[in-house]
Amino acid sequence: MRPSGRAPDEMRAITIETGYTKHAEGSCLISFGETKVLCTASVEERIPPWLRGKGEGWVTGEYSMLPRATHTRGQREAAKGKQSGRTQEIQRLIGRSLRAVVDHRKLGERQITLDCDVIQADGGTRTASISGAWVALRLAVNALMKSGDIVEDPITAKVAAVSCGIYKGTPVLDLDYPEDSNADADANFVLIEGGKIAEAQATAEGAPYDEEAFLRLLRLAQMGCADIFRAQDEATRK
Amino acid sequence: MRPSGRAPDEMRAITIETGYTKHAEGSCLISFGETKVLCTASVEERIPPWLRGKGEGWVTGEYSMLPRATHTRGQREAAKGKQSGRTQEIQRLIGRSLRAVVDHRKLGERQITLDCDVIQADGGTRTASISGAWVALRLAVNALMKSGDIVEDPITAKVAAVSCGIYKGTPVLDLDYPEDSNADADANFVLIEGGKIAEAQATAEGAPYDEEAFLRLLRLAQMGCADIFRAQDEATRK
Amino acid sequence: MRPSGRAPDEMRAITIETGYTKHAEGSCLISFGETKVLCTASVEERIPPWLRGKGEGWVTGEYSMLPRATHTRGQREAAKGKQSGRTQEIQRLIGRSLRAVVDHRKLGERQITLDCDVIQADGGTRTASISGAWVALRLAVNALMKSGDIVEDPITAKVAAVSCGIYKGTPVLDLDYPEDSNADADANFVLIEGGKIAEAQATAEGAPYDEEAFLRLLRLAQMGCADIFRAQDEATRK
Amino acid sequence: MRPSGRAPDEMRAITIETGYTKHAEGSCLISFGETKVLCTASVEERIPPWLRGKGEGWVTGEYSMLPRATHTRGQREAAKGKQSGRTQEIQRLIGRSLRAVVDHRKLGERQITLDCDVIQADGGTRTASISGAWVALRLAVNALMKSGDIVEDPITAKVAAVSCGIYKGTPVLDLDYPEDSNADADANFVLIEGGKIAEAQATAEGAPYDEEAFLRLLRLAQMGCADIFRAQDEATRK
Amino acid sequence: MRPSGRAPDEMRAITIETGYTKHAEGSCLISFGETKVLCTASVEERIPPWLRGKGEGWVTGEYSMLPRATHTRGQREAAKGKQSGRTQEIQRLIGRSLRAVVDHRKLGERQITLDCDVIQADGGTRTASISGAWVALRLAVNALMKSGDIVEDPITAKVAAVSCGIYKGTPVLDLDYPEDSNADADANFVLIEGGKIAEAQATAEGAPYDEEAFLRLLRLAQMGCADIFRAQDEATRK
Amino acid sequence: MRPSGRAPDEMRAITIETGYTKHAEGSCLISFGETKVLCTASVEERIPPWLRGKGEGWVTGEYSMLPRATHTRGQREAAKGKQSGRTQEIQRLIGRSLRAVVDHRKLGERQITLDCDVIQADGGTRTASISGAWVALRLAVNALMKSGDIVEDPITAKVAAVSCGIYKGTPVLDLDYPEDSNADADANFVLIEGGKIAEAQATAEGAPYDEEAFLRLLRLAQMGCADIFRAQDEATRK
Repeated sequence: MRPSGRAPDEMRAITIETGYTKHAEGSCLISFGETKVLCTASVEERIPPWLRGKGEGWVTGEYSMLPRATHTRGQREAAKGKQSGRTQEIQRLIGRSLRAVVDHRKLGERQITLDCDVIQADGGTRTASISGAWVALRLAVNALMKSGDIVEDPITAKVAAVSCGIYKGTPVLDLDYPEDSNADADANFVLIEGGKIAEAQATAEGAPYDEEAFLRLLRLAQMGCADIFRAQDEATRK
Repeated sequence: MRPSGRAPDEMRAITIETGYTKHAEGSCLISFGETKVLCTASVEERIPPWLRGKGEGWVTGEYSMLPRATHTRGQREAAKGKQSGRTQEIQRLIGRSLRAVVDHRKLGERQITLDCDVIQADGGTRTASISGAWVALRLAVNALMKSGDIVEDPITAKVAAVSCGIYKGTPVLDLDYPEDSNADADANFVLIEGGKIAEAQATAEGAPYDEEAFLRLLRLAQMGCADIFRAQDEATRK
Repeated sequence: MRPSGRAPDEMRAITIETGYTKHAEGSCLISFGETKVLCTASVEERIPPWLRGKGEGWVTGEYSMLPRATHTRGQREAAKGKQSGRTQEIQRLIGRSLRAVVDHRKLGERQITLDCDVIQADGGTRTASISGAWVALRLAVNALMKSGDIVEDPITAKVAAVSCGIYKGTPVLDLDYPEDSNADADANFVLIEGGKIAEAQATAEGAPYDEEAFLRLLRLAQMGCADIFRAQDEATRK
Repeated sequence: MRPSGRAPDEMRAITIETGYTKHAEGSCLISFGETKVLCTASVEERIPPWLRGKGEGWVTGEYSMLPRATHTRGQREAAKGKQSGRTQEIQRLIGRSLRAVVDHRKLGERQITLDCDVIQADGGTRTASISGAWVALRLAVNALMKSGDIVEDPITAKVAAVSCGIYKGTPVLDLDYPEDSNADADANFVLIEGGKIAEAQATAEGAPYDEEAFLRLLRLAQMGCADIFRAQDEATRK
Repeated sequence: MRPSGRAPDEMRAITIETGYTKHAEGSCLISFGETKVLCTASVEERIPPWLRGKGEGWVTGEYSMLPRATHTRGQREAAKGKQSGRTQEIQRLIGRSLRAVVDHRKLGERQITLDCDVIQADGGTRTASISGAWVALRLAVNALMKSGDIVEDPITAKVAAVSCGIYKGTPVLDLDYPEDSNADADANFVLIEGGKIAEAQATAEGAPYDEEAFLRLLRLAQMGCADIFRAQDEATRK
Repeated sequence: MRPSGRAPDEMRAITIETGYTKHAEGSCLISFGETKVLCTASVEERIPPWLRGKGEGWVTGEYSMLPRATHTRGQREAAKGKQSGRTQEIQRLIGRSLRAVVDHRKLGERQITLDCDVIQADGGTRTASISGAWVALRLAVNALMKSGDIVEDPITAKVAAVSCGIYKGTPVLDLDYPEDSNADADANFVLIEGGKIAEAQATAEGAPYDEEAFLRLLRLAQMGCADIFRAQDEATRK
């Protein structure tokens, strides 16, 4: 029995509120239940030094938690003077995930930074970040296409992410905090619309798992991402 | 003529949405027009080392801008590895302003941290932060009184802040970004309900000002803070 | 009764020893009683990136306390690896104050850095810094005019600063350390010769203050700055 | 055809030289072909603060590359003043992997730090690090059991890691640098002797992959780890 | 011929002004010609953690240059966020040199920090620092003995330091900046009254030197330190 | 009697294994008894900014200890976020020592970095580093001459370094850790083949020393370096 009463393959409610901030070229507030992440896409007409002159663009991600997004207040990384290993790991994952669905030549020599700031955390902040970042990216690219700055759509597909895990022996979809902090295994899947995998990470927290368990988690992720793809579609069509 | 068409003594619309995040002991999203700041109050049953054993509490403030709160994206302070001088100056101001209306003995040996995170910026983020932080503090203290952890109310009065400035020769209230970036003088007032001043800071950006101009800015601030006190009152009575 | 026996409107003895170090283009050791600050002006034929090609110069300030300028030894900021919020706040104030009396176009494309290093502290180090920095700046600009590097005088007026406060209920001028650490309110005024205000900052430390108290502090500051302007005049005429 | 001429399911030569340094409680130099990592286990009779008084121990990992382990010299992280996101991600993975096969209660209140320093890099440094760290840990624990400091063996199984990837369309085992830098997908598996999985991470670098490809990579990893388990066995029996 | 016209074995004028700052337990401004260093001794009734409970004290040194002590302005180490290798090397040398003449048991469980801040630099700042630090230490210890906090004098001898070098082929004493920046070899000697050596460091900058040259530099240093010992004696007898 | 049973003028066994890593242009693992340092020379076709356009090259050194090179584990400097004063002092010494035997014009506009990483420490790591760095440099320069990138040999002589000290009253050569940690005086000599001195540093740890003792230490160093020069010769002739 899940603490929330959800069925093992049941996602939390997904809501995506686009245009959440007025300055960003694309933005949304994405919620997976009580997890809320503000995702913004910022377009800059400059690229990292190593890409100059190649006619290609770049997509990168940044991630942070507001200090009181969590049950107990966490110290600001800006005050500590450095980003934690966890933050850096998540930032790298967000960037890789979004780059997996972008044709960098069609993007042109510009950089899009996807900032994911967690307003409220209840498990699954990194996967909500990736799913929301795609929406912000889609909106920013739409604007660039409308203005004629980009001619051909550089986004090749939707990308979404969801966490799964083995909780009290049962594979479950979309872990919330009470599950996440007690799971035997914890997996994050980044899936591309159409069935392919961009990234799979499954970690044994308590007991190691076997191949079959892994495949069941992947099935759950595929179900969850189907829901997220629908929500992304609705949000960006509006 | 102000860019927004407002009268010189006209505030922007003030809205205060309380309970904006579920984990904080007190929270609100305060808006002064398009400026939006999330203010949370976190209660911790520990105090800074220099206060131990004195039977007193402590109130402190922290401040940050989300990277795309502004027209162009700013680099994260966590990524740069340090907080700017501006950030530290504002944090110190928030803390001092709130401490001016708290009786530390009645608070007891606990610390309340007021986190002010700017979601969207359009001028006046530090004054909106102070005004919203009071609401978050009030809500957190209400909860501590309801639970019996605090017996006597440690909050002695309302405190609010507003910016004023001399824009194209005219003293105006509650500068927005287009005004703020072109003002001849720029002032921030932190006022206490009842008429007293907690902090006054007036800086000549373009041309120095005289005593009379200062007094007119103070008058405007008193008018603006009257509106803010009303909004604080409504928000915390709900 | 003030601990020093001074009258409420009495400044400490002001001395300004110019040419205190031989390498700086302008320098002085300024004393407000036992507070002693070494101020140097360094001229560099380069400007910050954001000003390049505009035909304008820049004036900036830096501030530090020697570790044993104070009653008890403070840790070096260089050893801690960062400057405190207080240091950065003071540095920003010094720069703004001096820029208020400089015509950046007449200065030409060069930067003048005003370093204020506190040799001995007894209250009022930031205001002594500003007052002494003007002397160092004046001397450096005199040299640039003598050498023909600058044709028209870019300094538009004298600027001076002094602290005032409410000590045991009485507004007093030029707080020393015993007063500063016990004042109910603490104000710093940066005034321009001729009567205008560049910056006013008044903070309630103990009890909030009212408009009348603020105006009495401003009067005291005007009296104190008149003395400082005379001392600056003598020092730079020699 | 692989650049090295190896068959798709062929590991590079594995060598493990134990006792490589004299001070560490356990140590080895592990080579996967030209990739060479020095792994040391350091036993300290202290534990992290959050574990005090629980009667449990802790196992953690650290990782670094010597500046000229690679084709071109990399700047030292100590000189840059911080560890990269990649370094922190690998350190976290090493620690998690080894903790998956340690019973922390049987270890007692002590910490074992597994330092993995890459002497020479040719792909697969993180997986060689994990595989060698187990050997260093085994040797250190053997010494603690011999001295009577530990009574029951806290190591529950062998753990090993290997990289796999899709190179020019073909799933291959144990990527070397020329393959790693051109792979379409890149996976790291941490497996436990007996068939379970401690960690699986598969990233699409070029093109996304499907479930079948993932399973073929897992098969290759199982074959590779069988070889590593044999090498670990030989090395620790000597 | 030396740029200053001095004879090869001629020191610059040495002056030592004691009691230069009022807060430090001991202080002086020492000048070797145009090189001026403020040395303060701060007594703290605490010792580093590794010495606790041993009944011994500790003496340590810190060093810094004011930004405009030199011909061209140097960036503050506090602003850069770290102390340079040169600064740290000098700090270590100052500490070692003073500890060579202190009996740590007689000092008792307290720490004395010798801060050496260069007000003006013209070569030989580290050796002037050591020579002045001894004076500050002597004065601070005198006060501790007078107050009865220390019973037996923990200072076993005078210590002084001077630089020598080979300038245009000739060994010379007490290099000033024009010599220092062009010397073939550059040596710093820390000598103890009575003839012993605490530290000798001789570096070939241009051409390597031989044993005979080294011995001639040592002779010069012995002559120079005799003068410094006399000046220290006069300064601390006053 | 030395703890190792060596005669006062007896070096530990010196071994130099060249080509220890495959990527570096020159490399060796040098051992002085149980002290083992990996030295690599990295050639880069770029020079520091201050040398650009002068037609000269640059040689620099870096140094680090692996965390468990020592009896007890030391924290990584990369994790601490800065290099210690000791590390920086040694790095500066390595660079100066090697530059003393290089003609920078003949080297051409390129930089050679000598990385010295201590694999195992038993006293004398800095002197082994310098001695091994020369071998790595020699091999890298040989390769540059063979490829025709350098025409005339820029290396003017061999350079070697050794530590000496006064242990229980007796001057001894090549201190190992048990001697080093108990010596009355500790000296490092950097000598150039042919008899000249590049650097001499002698520090009194316990009791100050006199001129005669210094000269005896220098004699020992000359004997030790003769052995090292032979070992360097053999290693680079192979």
